[in-house]
Amino acid sequence: MNFFLSEMVGTLILTLFGCGVVANVVLSKSKGQNGGWIVISMGWGFAVAFAVYVAGKHSGAHINPAVTIGLASIGAFPWANVPVYIAGQMTGGFIGAVLCYFAYRGHWEATEDPDLKLAVFSTGPAIRNAVNNFICEFIGTACLLFILLGIGANNFAEGLNPLIVGFFIMAIGLSLGGPTGYAINPARDLAPRIAHMILPISGKGGCDWGYAWIPVVAPICGGVAGAMLYKVLVG
Amino acid sequence: MNFFLSEMVGTLILTLFGCGVVANVVLSKSKGQNGGWIVISMGWGFAVAFAVYVAGKHSGAHINPAVTIGLASIGAFPWANVPVYIAGQMTGGFIGAVLCYFAYRGHWEATEDPDLKLAVFSTGPAIRNAVNNFICEFIGTACLLFILLGIGANNFAEGLNPLIVGFFIMAIGLSLGGPTGYAINPARDLAPRIAHMILPISGKGGCDWGYAWIPVVAPICGGVAGAMLYKVLVG
Amino acid sequence: MNFFLSEMVGTLILTLFGCGVVANVVLSKSKGQNGGWIVISMGWGFAVAFAVYVAGKHSGAHINPAVTIGLASIGAFPWANVPVYIAGQMTGGFIGAVLCYFAYRGHWEATEDPDLKLAVFSTGPAIRNAVNNFICEFIGTACLLFILLGIGANNFAEGLNPLIVGFFIMAIGLSLGGPTGYAINPARDLAPRIAHMILPISGKGGCDWGYAWIPVVAPICGGVAGAMLYKVLVG
Amino acid sequence: MNFFLSEMVGTLILTLFGCGVVANVVLSKSKGQNGGWIVISMGWGFAVAFAVYVAGKHSGAHINPAVTIGLASIGAFPWANVPVYIAGQMTGGFIGAVLCYFAYRGHWEATEDPDLKLAVFSTGPAIRNAVNNFICEFIGTACLLFILLGIGANNFAEGLNPLIVGFFIMAIGLSLGGPTGYAINPARDLAPRIAHMILPISGKGGCDWGYAWIPVVAPICGGVAGAMLYKVLVG
Repeated sequence: MNFFLSEMVGTLILTLFGCGVVANVVLSKSKGQNGGWIVISMGWGFAVAFAVYVAGKHSGAHINPAVTIGLASIGAFPWANVPVYIAGQMTGGFIGAVLCYFAYRGHWEATEDPDLKLAVFSTGPAIRNAVNNFICEFIGTACLLFILLGIGANNFAEGLNPLIVGFFIMAIGLSLGGPTGYAINPARDLAPRIAHMILPISGKGGCDWGYAWIPVVAPICGGVAGAMLYKVLVG
Repeated sequence: MNFFLSEMVGTLILTLFGCGVVANVVLSKSKGQNGGWIVISMGWGFAVAFAVYVAGKHSGAHINPAVTIGLASIGAFPWANVPVYIAGQMTGGFIGAVLCYFAYRGHWEATEDPDLKLAVFSTGPAIRNAVNNFICEFIGTACLLFILLGIGANNFAEGLNPLIVGFFIMAIGLSLGGPTGYAINPARDLAPRIAHMILPISGKGGCDWGYAWIPVVAPICGGVAGAMLYKVLVG
Repeated sequence: MNFFLSEMVGTLILTLFGCGVVANVVLSKSKGQNGGWIVISMGWGFAVAFAVYVAGKHSGAHINPAVTIGLASIGAFPWANVPVYIAGQMTGGFIGAVLCYFAYRGHWEATEDPDLKLAVFSTGPAIRNAVNNFICEFIGTACLLFILLGIGANNFAEGLNPLIVGFFIMAIGLSLGGPTGYAINPARDLAPRIAHMILPISGKGGCDWGYAWIPVVAPICGGVAGAMLYKVLVG
Repeated sequence: MNFFLSEMVGTLILTLFGCGVVANVVLSKSKGQNGGWIVISMGWGFAVAFAVYVAGKHSGAHINPAVTIGLASIGAFPWANVPVYIAGQMTGGFIGAVLCYFAYRGHWEATEDPDLKLAVFSTGPAIRNAVNNFICEFIGTACLLFILLGIGANNFAEGLNPLIVGFFIMAIGLSLGGPTGYAINPARDLAPRIAHMILPISGKGGCDWGYAWIPVVAPICGGVAGAMLYKVLVG
């Protein structure tokens, strides 16, 4: 697979499984309804892990514009490749969300609350406050880049890399996901939001576009900050 | 162990542990009653992992006709061996379900709802709709084949392969299990359904044969589609 | 460490952590009260894993008379060493339970139900029926030996062996623990039951000696059966 | 990174993620509210794992004065380096707690109970009793040192060491965390307590200084005892 295809497939897996686990927990009559935060966190963690298993050897499996831009900002990834990576990520994020819509067909009509339907696709704030929400996404994505670089610098069994990364995403969800639902990835949030806008979801509400910039801008800023901090501190 | 025996033992472990975790969560007075979706998902994931640990080196541990047929459809497995593999899988799937019946003896009588008793053996739809249920099982099994091939293509520590596959089954359950209970495996669903029909389960109801074709046909179609997509995209 | 000491320390870790997780979930005012079956299963699984990390290279970390006798019955362990292994296991199982008593001091008085206090130390049946309870413990321990031998036969990264075994114990708990609380180990059940009898536990009830033979005899029979079945089928 | 910086960064990650998971579970309106003990235990376990991934190769990632002093007490770490390690740990523990405060900004005001706010930062007893609480922290930290030394003595895949240590911290939380919330680490408890004192947390209460010595003194004593016991028994 070329870079575009690999990032597309990886991010498709990410949002199909990631949006899927939220659908399982929040949509009415789903067998995992009210499965709780442990289900959400583990589901998203594994979503990342298996996206990386598939896309890792073809494109490094960034599956996240904040990772791509963060790495580029410290010279660890060529700026020239950033556009094709992000294009693949956005395309895959969109297709994954569409597949999730089809996998949970029937449950959209069964669910009354339109906010829960949007929550399957995109993150939203627990307490709406642009400054606080920005800070939370910034801190989460700074940790993402800093610690990913720390993990990568270790000499561990190659084949388990994706699993370790998946466990790390679980850690972010468990610990820092409470206030904003941890987008920490513009493609994971914006592409499914566009899918939510387009798809014929029964009884859907608005897309909360007023909030949509935060899970795009804050992760990018946080990712650059985390990568730079790693370079300064560790080299 | 020869191919038949290996697939039989592997699928036996799969349905003994897999049906077992559902029994633990849904049957009355069981110590794990109401343990939630995290228990179900982890239980089925580990069921697959340890089935693969035992059967992996003898037959590759397909333990699933959709995997066998999916691999055969892209030339990754000889068609001539498909019958013996499926025979072993169906036999093992049946025996595992029978053993689960004995392990949870006493709890069948204690449980009132016949639907819960069937749920231990076979999957059923959260919202009954043949098209939607077919789509969900199709997507799940397509992901199964596509990502299994992706995992297998990595050069990771051999001995952890089964565990990674088990975590992947957890991922499918967490993310795509809500609408249909993720059969994604004809032998896992049909063989225990036959066991449910034959076994003298106290107060049992019908076997929902009207639904039974979906967790057989959809996984096979999805498995072939996923394997072919992998071959087209990755090669 | 010699064999006795190694099995003692390993089984001490097993029952300190294993009885500990039950105490955490069932004793009043404990921070993990009502943590659910996932907490119980993971706690016991990790208890085994870290017992094996410590005792594995000194004595092979049987930490279970059913494992010791099961292996001896197929010639995979010398009968002459069985007594010293079991002596170490029983001694360690007792000391671990005593340490658990001290770790949860204060919570015994806070808890009213004497059955919950006994449950911290020893298993009991969800539905009392000697035949059914025996069958369940028999099946569980037969799986334990059969699959442990299957795992051991794989060529995987040495250092992760204990973790894989721990995950397997999680699997048994999740899937087969519902009817009897999965003793599957005479030393894990009998030695803490003796500790329960001796310790000055505030407001304790009886030790349910009428049931105590089942989690001793059934695991030994099941372990021998599982080991022999493995030898017959796999060789 | 030098020793100070490495221990600082590691302990920062520890308390940011560790305090974070408690905040997620106990603060009002957080998306993980009432996520349960499994969320707490897994969150703290992964917090340690990823602290070790980042700091492990620079300073060995003690991230805990009880580990540093325990190792020094048996000659496995130079006493001369103890002060700089502890200084780094306390500094990082403080900064991590401050970052957690910012990540969960907005949720402090939303939460009424001041005890829950303190619980995010520092441990407290389930049943207040200095002797019992001391014993519990002592046993937990003795296990920590004894078993860490046991894990380290195994010859396993280098790169998974941090993950195994993280699973072990999960084990301690699941099994021994009930009575005191398992500080088992003076820097994890005292440094965030100081942060709680200084930070402008909306509606905060006291810092429970009367209890604060127990999660400092008991872990150090227990850590030394566990390390010495390991040296005596295993050598």
